Amino acid sequence: MEKQTIVVALGGNALLRRSEPMTAEVQRNNVRIAARALAPIAERHNLVLAHGNGPQVGLLALQAAAYKDVEPYPLDVLGAQSQGMIAYMVEQELGNLLPFEKPLATILTMVEVDLDDPAFENPTKFVGPVYTNEEAEVLAAEKGWVFRPDGPHMRRVVPSPEPKQIFELDPIRWLVERDTVVICAGGGGIPTAYLPDGTRTLVGVEAVIDKDLAGQLLASQLGADLFLMATDAPGVYLDWGTRAQRLLGRTTPAELERHEFAAGSMGPKVEAAIRFVRSTGHRAAIGSLDDITAIVAGEAGTIVEPDPIDEGEER
Amino acid sequence: MEKQTIVVALGGNALLRRSEPMTAEVQRNNVRIAARALAPIAERHNLVLAHGNGPQVGLLALQAAAYKDVEPYPLDVLGAQSQGMIAYMVEQELGNLLPFEKPLATILTMVEVDLDDPAFENPTKFVGPVYTNEEAEVLAAEKGWVFRPDGPHMRRVVPSPEPKQIFELDPIRWLVERDTVVICAGGGGIPTAYLPDGTRTLVGVEAVIDKDLAGQLLASQLGADLFLMATDAPGVYLDWGTRAQRLLGRTTPAELERHEFAAGSMGPKVEAAIRFVRSTGHRAAIGSLDDITAIVAGEAGTIVEPDPIDEGEER
Repeated sequence: MEKQTIVVALGGNALLRRSEPMTAEVQRNNVRIAARALAPIAERHNLVLAHGNGPQVGLLALQAAAYKDVEPYPLDVLGAQSQGMIAYMVEQELGNLLPFEKPLATILTMVEVDLDDPAFENPTKFVGPVYTNEEAEVLAAEKGWVFRPDGPHMRRVVPSPEPKQIFELDPIRWLVERDTVVICAGGGGIPTAYLPDGTRTLVGVEAVIDKDLAGQLLASQLGADLFLMATDAPGVYLDWGTRAQRLLGRTTPAELERHEFAAGSMGPKVEAAIRFVRSTGHRAAIGSLDDITAIVAGEAGTIVEPDPIDEGEER
Repeated sequence: MEKQTIVVALGGNALLRRSEPMTAEVQRNNVRIAARALAPIAERHNLVLAHGNGPQVGLLALQAAAYKDVEPYPLDVLGAQSQGMIAYMVEQELGNLLPFEKPLATILTMVEVDLDDPAFENPTKFVGPVYTNEEAEVLAAEKGWVFRPDGPHMRRVVPSPEPKQIFELDPIRWLVERDTVVICAGGGGIPTAYLPDGTRTLVGVEAVIDKDLAGQLLASQLGADLFLMATDAPGVYLDWGTRAQRLLGRTTPAELERHEFAAGSMGPKVEAAIRFVRSTGHRAAIGSLDDITAIVAGEAGTIVEPDPIDEGEER
């Protein structure tokens, strides 16, 4: 197979889960497992790796809240910390599996969002720990945070606006052109916005950008040959959870648009796949990290190919 | 003046001091002040910015220690977190002062140290908070940490080994070649070492690399035109603290070697300047961040120029 540029978006849960002890050792073991799956891709292709950071930012938020002498840092700063932490482990473990000459680099990534994005009117994305009703009321009054129920508890929600621009796109592209494995766009990128005062002043915002949509924007703007979302499911299912449930193998944006997918899980991935395929004419894929080599070969996962050209005009 | 490649090593204290409240706002204000000093250099030259992280890692260590449910992450991971946090603020604030087209990028930086470095036998570098004698004894027994007195308290010390190799050197160079402002080598780089088992496995180590020596290695290997260490003093003083105290203006490695400088402060800077000038034949400088434009012009700070060529052979 010819050498391709492949953008892989890797779920934050693949590297750390809330359900397991969030120690450095557990995180590193998970990173090592992911690196083993990714190394063959990095050897044969140009790999650009975007990754989630949900559980990791959750841990950093808990640590910051536990230390009472200094007010916890805002979400954009915690996101930047998490990019450093996660990418360090990934770069080191992946580097250990690749030939010494193979360059690797992590580019800290800021992503622009629009303060007029309707998401700011309707925060939906859970961040950080769970609280009791009473604790949530105090925090809402003190900090202006918004809370929603998460099971029996309350949890903070923040807006999840659309990614508009990746500020470090050119440096990422230049390193890909030099055959560098690039780790970037961690956690969907650090959310930033221009102040509405016309001064072109960029500031951090309290938001979380969907990592699959940020990965898609990156992949589209790089003109990647393949945008691959690695998760813990073998692919996209129709009629999920019913007796009629079935895995979609090859599909198209038009076919995906005829179905509904869960907003919190497969929905954004399907949307990101549609956008990538429509904007580039190249393939997107959704599947399990364990199957990643087979997915790149087109032999596993859900492969989203361009819509067939409508030849009606020519009849 | 012709466009030069200038590596600036900026002290962690310029961005956050232990003596001030370590809030996000204070840190960002300090970063903004530093960015104003650096922006004219970034506009006219190729700027590569290395920075310290001492106070910031101290804060992250305090936060991690305050949250009891998860064992604090080791120093290499905290260093990676601090690189993300500090570089994010610097990249954003510096970007706000530069033309939109000017590319900026932060490269996460791992630096190799040698496990046989004698520094591992003699830890000298203070990290994290101060403890009472009793607390220090418990931590020493539990974690194997080494403590030394810091004023009336005890504080953890870790080895400060020599930097041997910057793993991301090529990506940094490639971005400099594309006129990108590169922020890297934060905190002296994340300290890493190859396991002594012959498997070429790179792991993080509990150590702190001197940021000036790491900056020097970077500047030498990039072949920078100028290596500038920005601090809070106007330059290097002879007979510091005596009535005979005087600022060194232009000097040479040979002249610097005839004097002694304080191990904890000016000593490593002087050593880094000597190494840079001897390895490249280019100038090094030590001076105040406020004077940085004048230092680049050779009109302020201590400027270290190559030793005069010994023409004895030709007489």
